[in-house]
Amino acid sequence: MLDLKKTKKEMESIAIVDNVKLNDDETKIIILNQVLLPNAIEYKEIDNLKDAYDAIKKLEIRGAPAIGIFAGYVMYILSLKDRDLAFEEFFKNFKNNKEYLNSSRPTAVNLSWALNRMEKVVTDNKDKDVKEIISKLKEEAKKIHNEDIEMCLKISEYGLSLLKDGDGVLTHCNAGPIATSYGTAQGPLLLSKARGMHIKVFADETRPLLQGARLTSFEMEKAGVDVTLICDNIASIVMRNGWVQACFVGCDRIAANGDVANKIGTSGVAILAKHYGIPVYSLGPSSTIDMNCPDGDHIKIELRDPEEIKNMWYEKPMALKEVKCYNPSFDVTDHELLTGIVTEKGIIYPPFDINLKKIFE
Amino acid sequence: MLDLKKTKKEMESIAIVDNVKLNDDETKIIILNQVLLPNAIEYKEIDNLKDAYDAIKKLEIRGAPAIGIFAGYVMYILSLKDRDLAFEEFFKNFKNNKEYLNSSRPTAVNLSWALNRMEKVVTDNKDKDVKEIISKLKEEAKKIHNEDIEMCLKISEYGLSLLKDGDGVLTHCNAGPIATSYGTAQGPLLLSKARGMHIKVFADETRPLLQGARLTSFEMEKAGVDVTLICDNIASIVMRNGWVQACFVGCDRIAANGDVANKIGTSGVAILAKHYGIPVYSLGPSSTIDMNCPDGDHIKIELRDPEEIKNMWYEKPMALKEVKCYNPSFDVTDHELLTGIVTEKGIIYPPFDINLKKIFE
Repeated sequence: MLDLKKTKKEMESIAIVDNVKLNDDETKIIILNQVLLPNAIEYKEIDNLKDAYDAIKKLEIRGAPAIGIFAGYVMYILSLKDRDLAFEEFFKNFKNNKEYLNSSRPTAVNLSWALNRMEKVVTDNKDKDVKEIISKLKEEAKKIHNEDIEMCLKISEYGLSLLKDGDGVLTHCNAGPIATSYGTAQGPLLLSKARGMHIKVFADETRPLLQGARLTSFEMEKAGVDVTLICDNIASIVMRNGWVQACFVGCDRIAANGDVANKIGTSGVAILAKHYGIPVYSLGPSSTIDMNCPDGDHIKIELRDPEEIKNMWYEKPMALKEVKCYNPSFDVTDHELLTGIVTEKGIIYPPFDINLKKIFE
Repeated sequence: MLDLKKTKKEMESIAIVDNVKLNDDETKIIILNQVLLPNAIEYKEIDNLKDAYDAIKKLEIRGAPAIGIFAGYVMYILSLKDRDLAFEEFFKNFKNNKEYLNSSRPTAVNLSWALNRMEKVVTDNKDKDVKEIISKLKEEAKKIHNEDIEMCLKISEYGLSLLKDGDGVLTHCNAGPIATSYGTAQGPLLLSKARGMHIKVFADETRPLLQGARLTSFEMEKAGVDVTLICDNIASIVMRNGWVQACFVGCDRIAANGDVANKIGTSGVAILAKHYGIPVYSLGPSSTIDMNCPDGDHIKIELRDPEEIKNMWYEKPMALKEVKCYNPSFDVTDHELLTGIVTEKGIIYPPFDINLKKIFE
């Protein structure tokens, strides 16, 4: 049986950033301004709709779970200003705020999911006093946050159970405490540090958006984890050198047969790992498992702007304007390449088509 | 039997850049200023030692074969100024020029190789008239250039024989007409265009130095080849999509057993290709085959500056100063992952330990 209070204390002992939280008197939200990472750690107070909208729009806060948590808190904070209104006016403002905030990043599923959860609190309690509704909104926002914390802690524990002291772990992209509460794929690595273990992390920089460089290597370095940043194409030689005993990757969507859609390049990591005989684990909340999706071929791959490859981050363009690019945001890793899937419900092993079903029974 | 004159004409018909050549009256060298690529195509005249030194030092000319060709021409051009000197003074100046030029990039093997070839012309003909020596220097410089051209044309022909119309080819790094005369690994792709074939090229950008973006995609696009630029970690999904029928990569050094050292990431390409059942060919001059090196484990891997990963090209750093990086300049591809090795002597197939020996018999 997991002792999550203990796990949480351990995680807090090495936490170096709070990506999103309420201030002491619970009237403002304090977020880590992610746009400035890794060059500066600056926090920002948010206490109005416009700033909240801008924070999401300008990617000052990003990472699906972090946005969801933030959205819950925003709706609560905004409701404070309307505490003396009658329900109809309160609800009208609530709806307007919600709609505006949702438009800040329309494709972010966790944003609308959290906003809908908050609205349900209002509609479920419409007969109650507005001040009581506000109190329930605060509860719900904290619940959203706490659920994410609990999920991260469980995944961190299950993931860490797969490692032994001295192991090397290769990561791809970022699923750490900047994007979530304590991290999913990166959670076990932080927990290992809190427990005094010595895990050597090799962080793929993860082109084109460089989440591995900007976020994962930052999180690991700041927490004191032994991290080495590599280009994506260096993973093969790192594995050949015998430095990697496991690959920990995240997941955006898992099909019923265990095929995993995750950040572009994940399938390459898994193929290399198979070649070198290294286990590969995908870590993430069970909510990413889509039992209605039979396999990876049914997952639509989002294509992104070629400019991310040719021009983004750079002082000047690295390829001709007329050169076309293929820039899918994620790829599908065949379930046969995966050793296991780690969720808050435990570690799922093959045959995935059978064992994924079981966790929803 | 190859008709190299025909091949050369075809290559010239689509050539878009001359990386290095003599001007019309053969008194100056004209180089493509590679530093400005891909954002500008500008040529530069070189007619003195200081500019020649700077051109190599500042990477205005780069690529091992291109530097070798350039060095030959530089020694000839400089000798013109000393045409009226007696041999002793002529040779003294020659040696000084050679030494200074060689110091522009001490690790470039082709530079000292070409300079030594030019010096041998002087010492072998020391009894002759200085003007005759100068004439022989011009011949030797052109010979160095022509040998490279012939090697490129042969490799282009042999490489192209492996492709059929409509094929997709994945490339890694750059071994095209900017770095050589007509290209080794990229030569067959240009020749395919000259022959009216439709080859679809997928060019790995090749982090951290981005030769695939800056050079290969530039060369292909300018020659009218159908090229798509991808991040290195996108290669797996491109192969999974069924878009690639062959991988063409270069080689820096080939061991006697067929293990190939080439630009970092090549081994990853080869492992992915094996997984997806796609053939992999390494293309390069037979001079890169080192029969004294038994296997890839005996090839020393050069480690480069972490700043290339964290900071180079960017407007601001992408990782913390204190984050360490592992930045090997090349990796070793196991001979078992290679379908064939293409040199100017033909295509060599496994067993490589036996068949590589044969080409030197």
